[in-house]
Amino acid sequence: MLTERLRKIYAAAGADALFLEQDFLRRYLTGFYSTDGFVVVTAESCTLYADPRYFEAAERALRGSAVCVKEGSYREALAELKANRKIGVPYPFTDFARAEELRQEGFELCDCMPALKEAMEIKSPEEIALIGKACEIAEDAFLALLPQIKEGMTESAVAALLEYEMRRRGASGTSFETIVAFGANGSVPHHETGNTALSFGDPVLIDFGCKAEGYCSDCTRTFLFGDDGRHEDFKRIYADVLKAHELVAERAAAGMTGRDVDEIARGFLRSRGLDGYFTHSLGHGIGLQIHEYPLLSPRGREVLKDGMVFSDEPGVYLAGKLGIRIEDSMYLKDGKARSFMKKTKKNLMIL
Amino acid sequence: MLTERLRKIYAAAGADALFLEQDFLRRYLTGFYSTDGFVVVTAESCTLYADPRYFEAAERALRGSAVCVKEGSYREALAELKANRKIGVPYPFTDFARAEELRQEGFELCDCMPALKEAMEIKSPEEIALIGKACEIAEDAFLALLPQIKEGMTESAVAALLEYEMRRRGASGTSFETIVAFGANGSVPHHETGNTALSFGDPVLIDFGCKAEGYCSDCTRTFLFGDDGRHEDFKRIYADVLKAHELVAERAAAGMTGRDVDEIARGFLRSRGLDGYFTHSLGHGIGLQIHEYPLLSPRGREVLKDGMVFSDEPGVYLAGKLGIRIEDSMYLKDGKARSFMKKTKKNLMIL
Repeated sequence: MLTERLRKIYAAAGADALFLEQDFLRRYLTGFYSTDGFVVVTAESCTLYADPRYFEAAERALRGSAVCVKEGSYREALAELKANRKIGVPYPFTDFARAEELRQEGFELCDCMPALKEAMEIKSPEEIALIGKACEIAEDAFLALLPQIKEGMTESAVAALLEYEMRRRGASGTSFETIVAFGANGSVPHHETGNTALSFGDPVLIDFGCKAEGYCSDCTRTFLFGDDGRHEDFKRIYADVLKAHELVAERAAAGMTGRDVDEIARGFLRSRGLDGYFTHSLGHGIGLQIHEYPLLSPRGREVLKDGMVFSDEPGVYLAGKLGIRIEDSMYLKDGKARSFMKKTKKNLMIL
Repeated sequence: MLTERLRKIYAAAGADALFLEQDFLRRYLTGFYSTDGFVVVTAESCTLYADPRYFEAAERALRGSAVCVKEGSYREALAELKANRKIGVPYPFTDFARAEELRQEGFELCDCMPALKEAMEIKSPEEIALIGKACEIAEDAFLALLPQIKEGMTESAVAALLEYEMRRRGASGTSFETIVAFGANGSVPHHETGNTALSFGDPVLIDFGCKAEGYCSDCTRTFLFGDDGRHEDFKRIYADVLKAHELVAERAAAGMTGRDVDEIARGFLRSRGLDGYFTHSLGHGIGLQIHEYPLLSPRGREVLKDGMVFSDEPGVYLAGKLGIRIEDSMYLKDGKARSFMKKTKKNLMIL
């Protein structure tokens, strides 16, 4: 018997059977995490094939659930598939070598990612709670980091400390490579954290997130490490980025498209002559992966719904001068946007 | 003009042009790291298409090299490809959605991964040095961790501390999810690090690695947290696993197959009646990815050559009782195996 969620995905995929081998999709469909394994979904059942390393733990974890656990790997999963003709695999996460193999076995392939995406972008209350936990861990870690930041520390050292503070609070790891950028390094939106040392008066941009039971958080804070009196532009632009961020939090609503929400921030920055320096999208969906749907960008045509989780992260970057980004992870409930971030402040902080 | 290395890969691939978009392959071919970008290799040139976030940094880093940097993304790379018919993409790392897109553009596809694999599994002295650096950081971190391990700490807390010690020594991150297993948890080869607390007399298994400039290290140590006098079996089996590990280090040589090397350890454990509990391969190649070629397993048909890097990690697992694994990262030089690990000891440690 399939759960309601699985029944919907199966029906929407339009295949005789689904075949999945991706960590995050296995976890989504079965609730069990492993680095290897295969899931076969038919009209009647969902089966996890786990190899000897995982079989025992999977059986224990999934006893009594709607998921059947069998010992085996690719060959055993394939044997079950054989009774079917049209197999749904997630094209964007299926490697071409595997697709060719399956075709040579005589299967017709179709893409089941649209069906999965539609289900996955609406989070259940349990999923919202786990993302909330990942956000809380990240915020607590950030607050524990702040008093440990000292002049002369490198970006890498600050990233290491922050990751340690997240890990010791129960995060299983980071949700992406932590970005720590001192001074003008902040003007590169994806700056590679390096050996730049912190000086008095430096702006500091930290983009960080962790995972809790597989679910991700995403947050960015920008602040000053002391005020050397030369930060007039920085302070003015900071206020504008913060305003753009807050307008999104106030006005984003179910029924808007991703483009509409992006335009809340972009339109405001345009009115301040800054939209030319806002060089990326406003936000992206967050879940078991750090980049999911919906897309909040000028190309975001999707209509937002309750249960969607996304980042609100406007930024302004003046090449070689400064970069400011302010980001919360948000979700939609009762038609309105709510931030997961409840502990860290966003008014300009001077450390 | 292509470098010698690129010329060989291009020739072996048998395509009109190669098209690559995978982080680790971009890094391998160009030496530049970014989270996005596209590389096109033709008979005459290697071009990195970098988007505005990376363009400036890529141009600066690759000035004077054999790699040409152009501002652009998928569309721009595709435009250059258009002059060609047969395109090499790495099938195991190319998603099926992209493959279909390229086919619809009228390209014939072929798999360039065999050509890349052949080049990548022989490491240059520079690559060996970077893997050595990643190993040294990991060992230094492990040694710094040991005196911080206290009774009552959870597996997650120990993992967090070790990762912090690696990160602050310059690692850009872990090369895989750190495994810390206390007591009988060690009997699950891929135990998920959790909230088990450390007790006096517990065996501790730690499988850890980090990245230095993209290159991975891999190491496992098993030891006792105090000796409660009930470890006769543990000590006997530890000595056997260590012997298996050491025999590989002594005897592995260029010219052997992966299967031959695996059999050094497996044969010894067989002579001790333990091969039935050695439930995984002896080792795997290590490089920009944590699992590369060659494969040291009963199915490893590849012949080992100088410049290859691999793990030597025999293990014995008695379900629900104990697990012992001892692992070094190794490389072949002048026909002989050499360990990267020079600092941590492998005789049974009682902490």
